[in-house]
Amino acid sequence: MIDIETFENPHPKRDFVILHVAPEFTSVCPKTGQPDFGTIEIEYVADKVCVELKSLKFYLQSFRNEGVFYEDIVNRILDDLVAALAPRRMKVTGKFTPRGGMHSVVTAEHPE
Amino acid sequence: MIDIETFENPHPKRDFVILHVAPEFTSVCPKTGQPDFGTIEIEYVADKVCVELKSLKFYLQSFRNEGVFYEDIVNRILDDLVAALAPRRMKVTGKFTPRGGMHSVVTAEHPE
Amino acid sequence: MIDIETFENPHPKRDFVILHVAPEFTSVCPKTGQPDFGTIEIEYVADKVCVELKSLKFYLQSFRNEGVFYEDIVNRILDDLVAALAPRRMKVTGKFTPRGGMHSVVTAEHPE
Amino acid sequence: MIDIETFENPHPKRDFVILHVAPEFTSVCPKTGQPDFGTIEIEYVADKVCVELKSLKFYLQSFRNEGVFYEDIVNRILDDLVAALAPRRMKVTGKFTPRGGMHSVVTAEHPE
Amino acid sequence: MIDIETFENPHPKRDFVILHVAPEFTSVCPKTGQPDFGTIEIEYVADKVCVELKSLKFYLQSFRNEGVFYEDIVNRILDDLVAALAPRRMKVTGKFTPRGGMHSVVTAEHPE
Amino acid sequence: MIDIETFENPHPKRDFVILHVAPEFTSVCPKTGQPDFGTIEIEYVADKVCVELKSLKFYLQSFRNEGVFYEDIVNRILDDLVAALAPRRMKVTGKFTPRGGMHSVVTAEHPE
Amino acid sequence: MIDIETFENPHPKRDFVILHVAPEFTSVCPKTGQPDFGTIEIEYVADKVCVELKSLKFYLQSFRNEGVFYEDIVNRILDDLVAALAPRRMKVTGKFTPRGGMHSVVTAEHPE
Amino acid sequence: MIDIETFENPHPKRDFVILHVAPEFTSVCPKTGQPDFGTIEIEYVADKVCVELKSLKFYLQSFRNEGVFYEDIVNRILDDLVAALAPRRMKVTGKFTPRGGMHSVVTAEHPE
Amino acid sequence: MIDIETFENPHPKRDFVILHVAPEFTSVCPKTGQPDFGTIEIEYVADKVCVELKSLKFYLQSFRNEGVFYEDIVNRILDDLVAALAPRRMKVTGKFTPRGGMHSVVTAEHPE
Amino acid sequence: MIDIETFENPHPKRDFVILHVAPEFTSVCPKTGQPDFGTIEIEYVADKVCVELKSLKFYLQSFRNEGVFYEDIVNRILDDLVAALAPRRMKVTGKFTPRGGMHSVVTAEHPE
Repeated sequence: MIDIETFENPHPKRDFVILHVAPEFTSVCPKTGQPDFGTIEIEYVADKVCVELKSLKFYLQSFRNEGVFYEDIVNRILDDLVAALAPRRMKVTGKFTPRGGMHSVVTAEHPE
Repeated sequence: MIDIETFENPHPKRDFVILHVAPEFTSVCPKTGQPDFGTIEIEYVADKVCVELKSLKFYLQSFRNEGVFYEDIVNRILDDLVAALAPRRMKVTGKFTPRGGMHSVVTAEHPE
Repeated sequence: MIDIETFENPHPKRDFVILHVAPEFTSVCPKTGQPDFGTIEIEYVADKVCVELKSLKFYLQSFRNEGVFYEDIVNRILDDLVAALAPRRMKVTGKFTPRGGMHSVVTAEHPE
Repeated sequence: MIDIETFENPHPKRDFVILHVAPEFTSVCPKTGQPDFGTIEIEYVADKVCVELKSLKFYLQSFRNEGVFYEDIVNRILDDLVAALAPRRMKVTGKFTPRGGMHSVVTAEHPE
Repeated sequence: MIDIETFENPHPKRDFVILHVAPEFTSVCPKTGQPDFGTIEIEYVADKVCVELKSLKFYLQSFRNEGVFYEDIVNRILDDLVAALAPRRMKVTGKFTPRGGMHSVVTAEHPE
Repeated sequence: MIDIETFENPHPKRDFVILHVAPEFTSVCPKTGQPDFGTIEIEYVADKVCVELKSLKFYLQSFRNEGVFYEDIVNRILDDLVAALAPRRMKVTGKFTPRGGMHSVVTAEHPE
Repeated sequence: MIDIETFENPHPKRDFVILHVAPEFTSVCPKTGQPDFGTIEIEYVADKVCVELKSLKFYLQSFRNEGVFYEDIVNRILDDLVAALAPRRMKVTGKFTPRGGMHSVVTAEHPE
Repeated sequence: MIDIETFENPHPKRDFVILHVAPEFTSVCPKTGQPDFGTIEIEYVADKVCVELKSLKFYLQSFRNEGVFYEDIVNRILDDLVAALAPRRMKVTGKFTPRGGMHSVVTAEHPE
Repeated sequence: MIDIETFENPHPKRDFVILHVAPEFTSVCPKTGQPDFGTIEIEYVADKVCVELKSLKFYLQSFRNEGVFYEDIVNRILDDLVAALAPRRMKVTGKFTPRGGMHSVVTAEHPE
Repeated sequence: MIDIETFENPHPKRDFVILHVAPEFTSVCPKTGQPDFGTIEIEYVADKVCVELKSLKFYLQSFRNEGVFYEDIVNRILDDLVAALAPRRMKVTGKFTPRGGMHSVVTAEHPE
C-alpha cells in the first residue's frame, strides 16, 4: 500500500473539522473489469496528525487499476486512514457514477 | 417474482450506509393502463448480505408492465428487499413524475 | 364542497409518508379580486385511507374562483383533508408567488 | 374582449425591444374542461404606442375561464396585440406545463 | 402502427412553431434486451394539420416494448410524423440517458 | 414610524407558520451614505393577529432613505413587528448584497 | 444630472467590449409612487474614453427617487452615456423585477 | 489501437446529427505522470456507417494509462474516428478538469 | 497583525447571529509558494462588540502574501477574532479551491 | 515580464480551438490599492506553438501585486500572448467580481 503521510496537527486542543473532496476517483469493477468512477469525500477531526494532501492524492490514485466493489472501497479507505491518522472521528463517503441506469452512494464512519 | 441476488457483506462489523438511486423506474397505472415513471431510492444498512446491483436492476424492471399504485410500489419494494436482505434498517423512496399537474413522493422505512 | 374520495390504505400496519405537490394552484384575492397563484404541498401518514389523486386535483381546483387569504387557504385544506382522511399526521404548505415584491409561504400541521 | 390600453412610445425614433414575461397564465382545455397553465412571453418593438402593463395583465386574465387550445392562445394573443399596438415587430411565446407527461411551447411572430 | 390523429391548423396563414417535449420515452435495446430511456422533442411548423397531443402520447408509447437503436428511433419518429402531418418543416431530437458511462443525443430534420 | 396594520388570525387555535420574503429591501449605509440592498425574511407563528401584506411592504419601504447598520435593521424590524403583532414566535433574517467583496446575513429571533 | 466621469481609453486602436452589470438599480413608478427594482447592463465599445466606475454608480443612483417608466429608463441611460462617452457602439438592457405577476426586460442600442 | 466497430447507417439518405458524451475519460499527463480527467464529446453526421457504442467506450478507455497532452487527445480521437467512420462531418471536444487552478477545453472539427 | 476594529453591539440583550462571507480570500502555500484561494465564512453571536466590516476586510487581506496551511488559516482567524471580539460563540469555515484534483473545507468553532 | 513558454503545435495543419479558463486571477486596483479578483478566459487557434500551461499560470500570477485597470488587464494579456504565440486568432475575456455593487466583463480579440 502507498504510504499515507501526515503532519502534526497545528491546533490539537480544538476539535475542528477537515473535509477533503476528491472528484477524480477511479477504480476497476472486479466483476466486469470495466473502470468505475466516483467522488470520495473524507471528513475528520484530527487528533495528533493531519493527512498531507499530496500523499492523500497518491493513496487514492493507488485504486486506479485495482478491482474492488463500491462497498469495499469506502470501508477500506476508512480503515487505512484511521490506521494512519488515528483521528478523533472520521466519515468516508463514495458517490459513484451511474451503472446500468443506477448510481450509488456508500458512507462509513469511525467510530460508529 | 424475480430473484434478488445478494453477496456477503464485506464489512459486517460496521454499520455503514448504502444508497442506490434508480431514476429509470416505470410501471403501469392500474386505473388508466397508462405508464407511470419515477425514481426509486433504496438506502440501507446491510447485515449479513448486500444486494447485487444487476439483480436489483432486473428486480426493478419486473414492474415495467405491471399495474400498481404509487403507495403499493414503495411498500412492496421495501417488503421484498427486507425479505431478501434482512438489513439492519432500510428506507425506500419513490419520486413519481407529474400526473394531472401534481407529482408525488412516497417513503417507507423498516423498522419504523 | 367537492367530495374528497379515498381508497383503502394498502399497507396500514406501517407508518409511511405520502407527499403530493400541486404547483398549479390558483385562487382569488378577497381584497383586490385579482388571481393568486401558488404551489400546495400535502404530506401525510395515512391511517385507514389514502386520498385518491384525481379527486384531490378536483378539490384543489374548487378554489379557482373563490376569494380567500393565504393563511386561510392552507388551514382550510388541512381541515378538509383531516376530516376526509383522518390521517395519523398531516402537513400542508402553500408557497405563493410574489405580490407587491414579496412572496409568502404558509405551513400548518395536524396534530401540532 | 378586454380593452388593451396603450401609452405613447417615449422614444419612437429608436427601434428598441420590450419583453414582458407573464408566468401566471391560465386557461381551460376545450376538450377536457380542465385548467391549463403556462407562461406567456411578449417581445416587441413599439412603433407609435407601448402596451400599458396593468391593462396587459387584465387582457391575459380574460383567458382564465375560456376554453382554448395552446396553438390558438398564442396566435390570438399575437393578433389582438398587433391590432392594438401596430408594433414594428412582435413575437409571442406560450410555454405550457406538462399534460400526459409532455409539455409544449408555441411561438408565433409578426411579421413572419 | 398506432394512428397519429390530427386536427385542423387554426392559423394556417402564419408560419408558427410548435414544440412538444416528451421526457417519458422508453424503448428496448435490440442488442441487450434492456430498456432504454430518453426525452423526445418534436418541433414543427404545421401546414394544414396539427398533431393531437393524446394521440402523440399513444404513438410514442408504442415504442415501449420494441427493440430499436437510438439512430433509428429518431428517424422513424420523424418519418412517421412527416407522413401523418406533412408539416412545412419538422425537427425531432432524442436525448437518451447514460449507457456504459456515455449519453447520446440524435437529431434529424425535414426537409434537411 | 409607518403603522403596521394587522388582521385577525383566522385559525388562532393552531400554531401555524407564516413566512414573508421581501427581496427588494434597500436602506442607506450610515457611514458612507451609499445605498445598501438585501432580502428580508420574516417567519412567525401568529397569536391573535396576522400582519397585513401591503402594510408590511410600506413598513419595509420606510427604511429606503434611512441610515442604519445591518445589525440594527434586523433587530429593529423584529422589535417593531413583535410590538405590533405579539406573535407566539418570530424570526427575522436579513441577507445583504456584497460590499467590499463580502456579503452578510443577520438573524434574530423572539423569544430567543 | 450627475456628471458621468470618463478616463482615456488605454487601447483605442482595438475594438474591445466592456460590460458593466448593476443589479442594484432602483427607481420609482411614476404612476403608483412605488419603488421599482432591476438590473441594468451596459455593454459598449469605447472610442476615446471609458466610463469611470464610481461615477457610473453615482449616475445610476440618481434614479433612486425619480419617477420614470421602464421604457424611459433604458433609453435615457443610453442617451446620457452616448452623450458622455461617444462610444463606437453601446447596448443598454434593463431587467426589472415582477409587478402584477409579470416581469419586463427593455433593450436599446446605439447606433441601431 | 483498439478497433472501432461500426454498423450500417440506417438512414443514409438524410444528414442527421449524432452526439455521444463520455464524461468518464481519463488519461495520464506525459509531463508529470499524473492522471488527467475530462469529458469527451463526439458529434457527427454519419455517411455509410455509425460508430457502435460499446466499441467507442473501449476505444476511449484505451487512453487510460497513456501519456498524452490535451491538444493531442482531441486531435487523435478526431483522426481515429474519421479514419474509421468517414463521416460527412465530425466535431470532437475535450473538457478537462482543473490543473493548477485552470481548466481547459479543446475542440477540433473535420472538415474544417 | 492588522488591527481588527469593532463597534458597540446595538442589541446586546438578544443573542442574534451575524454571518460574513468573504469569497475573495487568498494566501500562499507554505510548501510550494503558490497562491491558494478560498471563501472564508465567519458566523458569530456578538457579546459587547461587533466586528467592523472594512477592518475585517483588511484583516483577511493581511494573509495575501503569507505562507500558511488551510488547517492553520481557519484556526488562526478564529483565534484572532475571538481575541478581538470575545463573542458568545463563533464558527469560522474556509472553503478552498481545488489543488491536485481535490478541494478542502476546514471548520472550527469557539467554544467547542 | 515573466516568460511565456510554448511547445510545438502537434496538429498545425488543422485550425482547432484551445480554451484555458483561470478563475483564480487577482491584481490590485491602481486607484484604491485594494485587491481585485476575476476569471480570465483565453481562447485561441494555435499556429506554430501552443502555450505551456504552467508557464501561463505563472504569467497570470505576475499580476498579483500589480496596480492595473480591468480594461488594461485584458488588453495587455492579449498583447503579451499574441507576441509570444503568434496565434491564428485569440480572444481574451476578464470577468471581474462586484465592486460598488457592479461587476464587469471585458473582452478583446486578435485580429478584430
